[in-house]
Amino acid sequence: MNNKQKAKLEWCDEYHNGVRYGLEGKLILEESSSFQKIKIFESSRYGKALFLDDCWMTAEKSEKCYHECLIHPALCCSKQIKSILIIGGGDGGSARECLKYKEVISIDLVEIDQRVIELSKKYLPTIGGNAWSDSRLNLKIKNGIDWVKNKKDNSYNVIIIDGADPIGPSKELFSNSFLQDCKRILKPGGVLATQSESPESFQKLHINIVKVLREIFNYADPIYGSVPIYPSGLWSWTFASMEKIEYMNPQKNRVKEISKSCQIWSERWQQGAFNTIPAFIERELEKI
Amino acid sequence: MNNKQKAKLEWCDEYHNGVRYGLEGKLILEESSSFQKIKIFESSRYGKALFLDDCWMTAEKSEKCYHECLIHPALCCSKQIKSILIIGGGDGGSARECLKYKEVISIDLVEIDQRVIELSKKYLPTIGGNAWSDSRLNLKIKNGIDWVKNKKDNSYNVIIIDGADPIGPSKELFSNSFLQDCKRILKPGGVLATQSESPESFQKLHINIVKVLREIFNYADPIYGSVPIYPSGLWSWTFASMEKIEYMNPQKNRVKEISKSCQIWSERWQQGAFNTIPAFIERELEKI
Repeated sequence: MNNKQKAKLEWCDEYHNGVRYGLEGKLILEESSSFQKIKIFESSRYGKALFLDDCWMTAEKSEKCYHECLIHPALCCSKQIKSILIIGGGDGGSARECLKYKEVISIDLVEIDQRVIELSKKYLPTIGGNAWSDSRLNLKIKNGIDWVKNKKDNSYNVIIIDGADPIGPSKELFSNSFLQDCKRILKPGGVLATQSESPESFQKLHINIVKVLREIFNYADPIYGSVPIYPSGLWSWTFASMEKIEYMNPQKNRVKEISKSCQIWSERWQQGAFNTIPAFIERELEKI
Repeated sequence: MNNKQKAKLEWCDEYHNGVRYGLEGKLILEESSSFQKIKIFESSRYGKALFLDDCWMTAEKSEKCYHECLIHPALCCSKQIKSILIIGGGDGGSARECLKYKEVISIDLVEIDQRVIELSKKYLPTIGGNAWSDSRLNLKIKNGIDWVKNKKDNSYNVIIIDGADPIGPSKELFSNSFLQDCKRILKPGGVLATQSESPESFQKLHINIVKVLREIFNYADPIYGSVPIYPSGLWSWTFASMEKIEYMNPQKNRVKEISKSCQIWSERWQQGAFNTIPAFIERELEKI
């Protein structure tokens, strides 16, 4: 930004439960799609950012701390990773991280809102990066609920659920019936990965997501990390599977393949993140 | 708060580098001490909060995520914990966590600003709790730099540095000469614990603190956790010692003594937190 642009800066805040988190910058675009209110905001701290239904979704210079944590524990540890399904993820960041693995042959990215993809490609091109032109990526502008309902058994090695909070268009992505379908279309030895909200700002939601996943799958293990632009900054992702997954011992060849490009994730970070469960959450989960 | 009070709510924000973090509530008190500007703000989300020199310091309902992380890795792992020095910590939270251990015989709490103690006792009494009336606690309204300079060799089993950012009155708490004195007055097998800023919002400061500690001590290991009211929410604490400390294997009797009262900290959490170092920080620290 030049000085003239800086003089016109404004604040854009996400409000949540008596707390606000704001970025200073400039509103680039504001519109309503068929599904949600969309803003593109150019912030001085984190570059261009996507603001959906009054919540920060992603930003050019802070997106890795979300996408790396969602993707790599699953892709470094799932038995096979040839076929991937991403539900949501219209900014392209999850696809980009998955496509770093040579073993990945095909990704179905099922995003309900075409405008999120169009605007991400135009304003946040570094987030999707080369993913948009990678022939392994199949874009589907569809409802993810219908997609998994209509899919054959044993279709994917890994399923990534990269949606917003369980209000608005993403609500059903945390429902029992949707997750049952996910289990059905997951191949043996596979992993389902989902963002699972903040144990600080959305404590009940977080506990409920882990609980529902543990009812449906044999295993569901949360990790904890930091997404500065989300409420409280403390965030979680949960990994569910029918077979026991060796998260403390990810596949060495895959770790080697991706480590250098990661900002947050490492094998060591992953080993830590499965253990930094806040004590009060651990006590709640023991009651399940 | 009743409805009449809610109608008068205002926002109080900490501004940092193009980001703002605000709490909704009511200003209770505003004054300047000899050392800093002090506000007491009653927030709807985290209860009464202390705001020093325009930065959030602590709040009734979020202080445990800071104090538990600063205190317990040191006190569960130091060889002995009979004599403790706390520099800063005028809100009383660090002293309260230390006093949970029966082995602790005496704590010198050296706070430079008497008003922080007086206002914490009056407005944030739950943070200090029973510490203020515990006969093991010796309050000293003194400059911490002078205190460690004048103290005999081998005086303390554990030293806790619980200061603000290295600007204003806390600047010298990160200096080489101060930390050299800390090393000198620490008993064999002891641990120095300090808050060490955010690897996200104060990246250079964080790296520099670990670097200085590694120059002075034989070991200096950071942990990473979450303090929602601090910039970015991602925070760190670093533990320095001359002898190798078994952080992965804390003393079981002490763990048992304190676990039930902890909100965030647990033996498992600690084992994780020494490993959740962001990859880009780990690469920077390898260059030291």
